[in-house]
Amino acid sequence: MNTKQNILQIGAEIIHRKGYNATGLQEILSAANVPKGSFYNHFKSKEDFGLQVIDFFTDFFAQFCKDILEDSNRSPLGRLELLLDRFMEFFDSRGYTCGCPVGNLAQELGDLSPVFQEKLSKAIDTMVDYYTMILSEAQAAGEIPKDLNAKEAASFIVTSWHGALIRMKVSKGVGPLKNHKKFIFNYVLKS
Amino acid sequence: MNTKQNILQIGAEIIHRKGYNATGLQEILSAANVPKGSFYNHFKSKEDFGLQVIDFFTDFFAQFCKDILEDSNRSPLGRLELLLDRFMEFFDSRGYTCGCPVGNLAQELGDLSPVFQEKLSKAIDTMVDYYTMILSEAQAAGEIPKDLNAKEAASFIVTSWHGALIRMKVSKGVGPLKNHKKFIFNYVLKS
Repeated sequence: MNTKQNILQIGAEIIHRKGYNATGLQEILSAANVPKGSFYNHFKSKEDFGLQVIDFFTDFFAQFCKDILEDSNRSPLGRLELLLDRFMEFFDSRGYTCGCPVGNLAQELGDLSPVFQEKLSKAIDTMVDYYTMILSEAQAAGEIPKDLNAKEAASFIVTSWHGALIRMKVSKGVGPLKNHKKFIFNYVLKS
Repeated sequence: MNTKQNILQIGAEIIHRKGYNATGLQEILSAANVPKGSFYNHFKSKEDFGLQVIDFFTDFFAQFCKDILEDSNRSPLGRLELLLDRFMEFFDSRGYTCGCPVGNLAQELGDLSPVFQEKLSKAIDTMVDYYTMILSEAQAAGEIPKDLNAKEAASFIVTSWHGALIRMKVSKGVGPLKNHKKFIFNYVLKS
């Protein structure tokens, strides 16, 4: 891995745990074991770094989804269910901490920086696009009602998930995520 | 208003806008126009203050709900709809900023402080209790299906709302809140 990718990955991990403002540049440099000069060879500022970290998270999300959503052994709805289950396993492995990094940053920075606001809005749009795609496929396969507005339903799934992750962080259990899955599958996507 | 209430109200307003960690004690003291000694007459520490601010937000939420939920001119489901509409008006008046203070603090502090984690978990439980009550009344009135688990549905409404507020902060519009309302009313609570 090259230096830039290394800084991004290590910085993303810290920001995921602590948030953007609570993460100092020095902490990132120490964790990545690079001098400040090297950081500024790759990033114009902490803000520039933060914006690229959002791309890093979006790419991580896309990669996380990709293998599952392209699995042709499962039906579209089966893939959506597996995706939620895999996310639950991910958060279980992290002791129900962290939450969605994009959702966290939207909450933290949405009002504080127009640049981050726009970037994060697009990052959430990208997530919605993934779910819209899978819901459209599920409609084509006859698994969910055709009169459901796939994009609106996808938006609802993404925002509801972000909220479920918030409660997960204080209840420290899988309950809110399971409840999300139950209502999405048994009510929103019910034939 | 007494000094303590004044500090709580002004501090809560700043924390609602900026979050807990980004709000300095000095900023609260300046805005409330009180000396540090006066603050420490009422609060043991910034943490103690923060915990009491959560009670302040919970009381605000309860008061916000109370007049609407006790309005006997409306059916239970009509009250729930009015509550969501009032919240939308509130956020419209604030330019779609801030979000839910309890949701915000849960996201910010859920992993960072066990004391805040527990306090915020209880604050969200309280919100869920309000929605559970109104859903149970709607069931008794025959407005929503009796086989719906009111507490689970209430939990889902609260967490989905928190997530919708996150996207509102970056989209700077009412869209995510309207989408939340649509799916709750047309799918989750549908007879």
